[in-house]
Parts: sequence; structure tokens; C-alpha cells
Amino acid sequence: MSEAVAPPSVEIVEVAPRDGFQSIAEPLPTAEKIAVIEGLLDAGITRMELGSFVSPKAIPQMADMAEIAAHFRGHAGARLSVLVPNAKGAELALQHGYPEIVFVVSVSEAHNLNNVRQTVAQSLDQLRAIVAATAGTEGLRLRVDLGTSFDCPFIGTVPMDDVARVFRAALAIAPSAEFALCDTTGRADPLTVRKRFAAVMADSPETSWAFHGHDTFGMGVANALYAYEAGVRVIEGAAAGLGGCPFAPGATGNTATEDLDFAFAEGGIRTGIDRAKLLAVADRIAALPGGKTGGHLRAVPRPRAVA
Amino acid sequence: MSEAVAPPSVEIVEVAPRDGFQSIAEPLPTAEKIAVIEGLLDAGITRMELGSFVSPKAIPQMADMAEIAAHFRGHAGARLSVLVPNAKGAELALQHGYPEIVFVVSVSEAHNLNNVRQTVAQSLDQLRAIVAATAGTEGLRLRVDLGTSFDCPFIGTVPMDDVARVFRAALAIAPSAEFALCDTTGRADPLTVRKRFAAVMADSPETSWAFHGHDTFGMGVANALYAYEAGVRVIEGAAAGLGGCPFAPGATGNTATEDLDFAFAEGGIRTGIDRAKLLAVADRIAALPGGKTGGHLRAVPRPRAVA
Repeated sequence: MSEAVAPPSVEIVEVAPRDGFQSIAEPLPTAEKIAVIEGLLDAGITRMELGSFVSPKAIPQMADMAEIAAHFRGHAGARLSVLVPNAKGAELALQHGYPEIVFVVSVSEAHNLNNVRQTVAQSLDQLRAIVAATAGTEGLRLRVDLGTSFDCPFIGTVPMDDVARVFRAALAIAPSAEFALCDTTGRADPLTVRKRFAAVMADSPETSWAFHGHDTFGMGVANALYAYEAGVRVIEGAAAGLGGCPFAPGATGNTATEDLDFAFAEGGIRTGIDRAKLLAVADRIAALPGGKTGGHLRAVPRPRAVA
Repeated sequence: MSEAVAPPSVEIVEVAPRDGFQSIAEPLPTAEKIAVIEGLLDAGITRMELGSFVSPKAIPQMADMAEIAAHFRGHAGARLSVLVPNAKGAELALQHGYPEIVFVVSVSEAHNLNNVRQTVAQSLDQLRAIVAATAGTEGLRLRVDLGTSFDCPFIGTVPMDDVARVFRAALAIAPSAEFALCDTTGRADPLTVRKRFAAVMADSPETSWAFHGHDTFGMGVANALYAYEAGVRVIEGAAAGLGGCPFAPGATGNTATEDLDFAFAEGGIRTGIDRAKLLAVADRIAALPGGKTGGHLRAVPRPRAVA
């Protein structure tokens, strides 16, 4: 149905090259990664996490990050970021020409220790070091991912007070950063997603927010829409629902980008994505050996999924 | 998080014994059907479609409807209904002691012809005959399912004007019926679900509404929640996501009841369902030979899915 005023558009951040590729035990050939990333860009993805600057011992899947980074350095038309768990990673990101950095800290101490081998306080110190080191960097964009903002594989439900406390501490360090509430395990439910975003957004109305979700419990699409209802305009997904989190036992892949595109675009919320092209890339991803994929749209006869 | 005032509860209508069982090519043993239905009642289901009074030639899976009906006749504590496509089916329902009748008519002419071998006008005549024949029947409850209220496997998007027109025509015949917008193919998107319910509810504020959805495009849970946001308090699902529609090519099963329960109950919206018991029945359904199942919650480690 037509509407007099179109609803605000949404920007889907593609994280398959980071959250997805790291979930495949046997590292992919660099050329294959590059081909997938190029396909995603061609499908109209305007923001993407290319990978992460992490210890290749901890995550060998990201050992070729420098090559990937070099290939896409200076790419025009899309915002390409890299995830870092510490100041050293941020230094590498800048060295490789990536002033768009995603820093991750989990609200849950247990998960942060497991994920990045640091206490939350130590992670916040790393964030402080990053902010200090990047001060004055032209074009710098910083995102802070608040991992386990809903549920933690080790402690269960994460108290909202803890989310608010870690958010405020990080905001005090990086007041101009974009923030994300991350449903690391995929156990968040839609109403709680909306409620928690409403709380943090009321707490800091000037902050830009994103939502990162997984589809483990089948809530991925609904959680993204409820984040949107709260006012979030940046939503993360992974084509073909590739992924999981090696440090979040039981979590399945990110919500499939093509499912998110369907949910938003069919409802009249612009995503800018070419769904036919996206589905073609998603099929390529689904064919990668060792990858666990999900999502629903790929299983639908293609003309119906695209039209 | 706690809230001062609990949101309105939702009633999930279980349709696996009707929409689900009819999707299994080889008819199930009656005793197995009865055991599943009893398990669903024990899990706290308060409304259920037991099956349909249809031609056993057209749908042999429902040939034992009289036995099922006799077994549960007079069951206390839950509202048990039967689906009928015509006045003859309604007569059988009443004869077998079921004054709760679900009458189905599709908004799309093409689908109605394919599904019940009648034009929409002929189906409305059947509805008129049912209303006349049941006038004065004690405890009578009539539901009108508006099939293909969003998308039709034969014509694609169903115009909202058609939905409004068929609804008004049916309402004029059965003004005290409960109505359902049915996403027969599972292609509806959440925002359109909310919009279409808002339109029909504004058109007739006194009418009670239900939503019937499938998860074909992965929108099932989100569609149900957006129906709820529009004010719908009756949502249909099938345990284990069993089903499909033999007359809606490409449609997969109904949205899984256990996924719906998770989405609502975790968000603080009461369903009255015992999730551990429901999941046990869903597992039993998933083990039925020839059944196609879906949903996400069964794949999650059980303690996490229940807690």
C-alpha cells in the first residue's frame, strides 16, 4: 500500500566477511573472500565489516586481513570497517588505511574474558588508548559494539543495569562513537530489544545506535524490526546467515541479510539493496565448504523471493 | 525487565491438527493424532483447530474427523474448533457437537477456486447458509478465515481493496463472527501485516481479529508480533511448524507455536503455555513420518529454550 510519507530508510551493515568468515574452521582462500566482498558491494551494500585485526593465533581465519585490507583500501562508495579488540588492532587498522574501527567490549565480564581475554575495565582502557591514539585522525569513525547486551552464554540474562553502566563508561571515553547493542547469542526477544534500545536512547539522545543480532532462536528478523521501531537505523546482518561466534557457544549465524532486506524493503523501508544480486552472493556463500548458513529467503523459489 | 503494567496477553490457537496433519501425504493413525492433541492440551493450549469436515476424497487426511471429534467432544478447559469450507461441513460439525466453526474463504478468486472449488460469491453464499442454519444454536462461535489476505500463489500481491471488500461482505452476513487475516503463503511482511490489520480494525472496531501465518519467508514470528502491535490478541501457530497448504504451492508450515511462545512470553506477554511440555509435543510431531517441520526453538539446547 502506498503511504504519503515514506518511513525512514535503514542501512544494513554486512558482517559476513567478519562474523561469518571467522566461523568457518578452515580459513578461506583470500581470493574467495575478496570475490564475496566484491559481490556484496555490487549488490548495493553500503557498509561492511571487512574482517578483524586480531591475533592470527586466536583467529587464524583473519590471518590474511592485511591483504584484504590492501585490496579494498580507498574503495569509494561504501563504508568499510574493521573490528578490533584492542589498541594494537586499532593501530593496525589505521596503518592499513582503515579509519573506520569497530571496537568490541562485552557487557558480561565472563564473555569479555572469554572473547577478548580482558576484563571489561581492561577493555575500556583499550578503548581509551584507541581514542587517544586516533585523536585528530582525518575521517575517523569509531563504533563501539556492546557484546552480550541481552544474554550471555555463561551467565544467562545480562542485567539492563550492567548494559547501561558499560555503555555510560564507554560513552564517557568515546562520546562521538556510534554504539551497538549486540545480541551475541541470538537469545534476545523483540520486545526486550525495543525496551533496551529505548532505555539507552533515552539516556543519551545524541548517540547513534546500531543493532547486531543472531537468529539462533528465530527472533533475528523480529529483533531487527523492533530495534528499528525504537529508532535504530543501522542493522547488521550476514548474507546467507553465515556464521556463529566461536566464543558464544550455541549461537548460530547472524540474521540473514536477505531476510532483513525482505522484511524492511517489502514493508516500504528502503535498504538500497539489489535483492537478486544479494541472493546470488548468498548462494555463493552457502556453497563455501565448512560454512554454516541459515536464513529463509534462499529456500524460496527465486522469482518469488526477488519480486 | 519488570513493568508496572503487564501488556495484554495473547492466545495462541494451535492448528497443527488441521493445517499440519493435512500436509502429511499418508494419513496418520487416528490414535497418533489423538495423542498429539492431548499433548497439546496438556501443554496449556486453550484453543485448537481439531481438523476439518471436508470431503475425504479431497483431503483423505481428515477422513477420521468424526472419530477425532467424538473423542474430544465436550472437552472442558479449551475451545476446540473445526474448519469447514461449506454449509455441509458446518452441519457435520454441529452434528458432532462442535458449535465452534472456522469457515474459510479466500480473498483471491483464483485461490478460492483452487482451495474450495467455489467462487468467492459462492463461498459467501455458503457462509449465509451456515449463519441461517446455526441461528439460535447455543454456544455457537463462528470464525471467518480470510485466506490469501496478503499474497496469493496464483496472482501475487492481493490488493487491500479486495481484502476490505470480501471482509465487508462477510461481515454483513456474519456480524458477530471473529475474523482472521490469513497469510496463506507466508509471503506477508510485518509492516504490511500491521497496516492491513489497522485498516480492517478501523473499518470495524467491534470485530474480534486473529492472525494466521506461515513462516515460508522467515517472517512468521515478526508478522505475528506486528499483528499484536495492531491490537490482534489471537495468533495461530502449529507446534514444530508442521505443515504447508496443499493448495498454496510453495508455502511451508505455519509459524511454529514454540517460536511464537518464545517471542511473546520472553517479552512479558502471557501465553499460558508450558514451553517444556510444548517442546516435547513438538518433538513428537517432528518425528511423524512424512511431516515437514520448521521453527527454530527445537534446535536450541533444551534448557536454554525453556528457561
